[in-house]
Amino acid sequence: MKKIAVWGFRSVPAFAQGLVRDLRVRWALEEAGLAYESRFIGIEERHSDTYQRKHPFGLVPVLESSEGTLIESGAIVHAIAEHCEALMPSDRRAETLAWMFAALDTVEPPVWTLSVMDLQHRDEEWAKLRRPAAVDQVRVRLTALSEWLDGREYLLGRFTAADILMTTALRFIRHTDLVAGFPLLDAYVKRCEARPAFQTALRDQLADYARNEAVAA
Amino acid sequence: MKKIAVWGFRSVPAFAQGLVRDLRVRWALEEAGLAYESRFIGIEERHSDTYQRKHPFGLVPVLESSEGTLIESGAIVHAIAEHCEALMPSDRRAETLAWMFAALDTVEPPVWTLSVMDLQHRDEEWAKLRRPAAVDQVRVRLTALSEWLDGREYLLGRFTAADILMTTALRFIRHTDLVAGFPLLDAYVKRCEARPAFQTALRDQLADYARNEAVAA
Repeated sequence: MKKIAVWGFRSVPAFAQGLVRDLRVRWALEEAGLAYESRFIGIEERHSDTYQRKHPFGLVPVLESSEGTLIESGAIVHAIAEHCEALMPSDRRAETLAWMFAALDTVEPPVWTLSVMDLQHRDEEWAKLRRPAAVDQVRVRLTALSEWLDGREYLLGRFTAADILMTTALRFIRHTDLVAGFPLLDAYVKRCEARPAFQTALRDQLADYARNEAVAA
Repeated sequence: MKKIAVWGFRSVPAFAQGLVRDLRVRWALEEAGLAYESRFIGIEERHSDTYQRKHPFGLVPVLESSEGTLIESGAIVHAIAEHCEALMPSDRRAETLAWMFAALDTVEPPVWTLSVMDLQHRDEEWAKLRRPAAVDQVRVRLTALSEWLDGREYLLGRFTAADILMTTALRFIRHTDLVAGFPLLDAYVKRCEARPAFQTALRDQLADYARNEAVAA
């Protein structure tokens, strides 16, 4: 994989900085030791014909490389992991992918629902009525995940691509104390976020927003 | 892959019959020509210690085979597709996986949200207040998907594992006329559902529920 470019948004509101899904791709690339360039679109350009030729749903991230164009953070992280034994051990590929799907399809949906409710609809009546049940649904998943992590430092024991997706999914509720309520889970997220590759990816994503905003000002 | 068993629920309410996610696995196995046995748990047994050793989140499906135990419908369908060139062409693996993730992470979330709202919370005040916006969010995805399918019989041109996940995701709103409002998309779903492998998988899932209910009665 050569000449790598990662597409993200040029700028996002403060509450979303450090949450946008190109962070996952940046993190995986840092873990794999692959250099990349960041590219940007304005949120308002998402549904332009030009951008929709790159991403049919007008979303980020998109990965461009010598191997072609790829959409979906899960698929992109998997493609990077295929180049990196440390992210996906060759004898545990199916298991790694299963936990990648578990992060995105079992844990992220209730977490994302609560995140959107709190960060974008906090004062709306439906959100006030629904929030207690949404919190309960998050707790059901966090309880099971915390039990799984009892005796494991990472989802598969050792760090893999699945931890990149799980950690970034759990970050969507960083504005709550829900994860902190599960000490094993809290320690797990902090352990993942302490990795130099995560720190570099996050710093670079935030620095890009700051630079783009300075140019636009 | 030998001695395959697929776990699903012993019985589900009528509105959910034909929607539970073991259908995806059954369909993929039929497309791949792999024989399997169905195994069942009661919904109330989901969080038992015994079942949580099989599935940490207490969900279905689980696939058991000579290759071990696997969770997550996306990961299971991918594992089956790795044994079947027809489900995942060897020169288009990354693209197939990208569309599998697109089905589960970009299309399914708003579709599932609307489905749960309508089928489980129809008379609740929050659902009444939120439904118009939930429908709009589904339409945004269906519009982009319909544009993508203009000139394509299937997501990748030819049928792959991604179509199994996309079709079963869209089935969650079969109680609405939303898909019917997009003629290309409607034709796509009907084309996928007309496949003999889908028909067999659906018939067997429904027959298992009927048999299990008769035993319980």
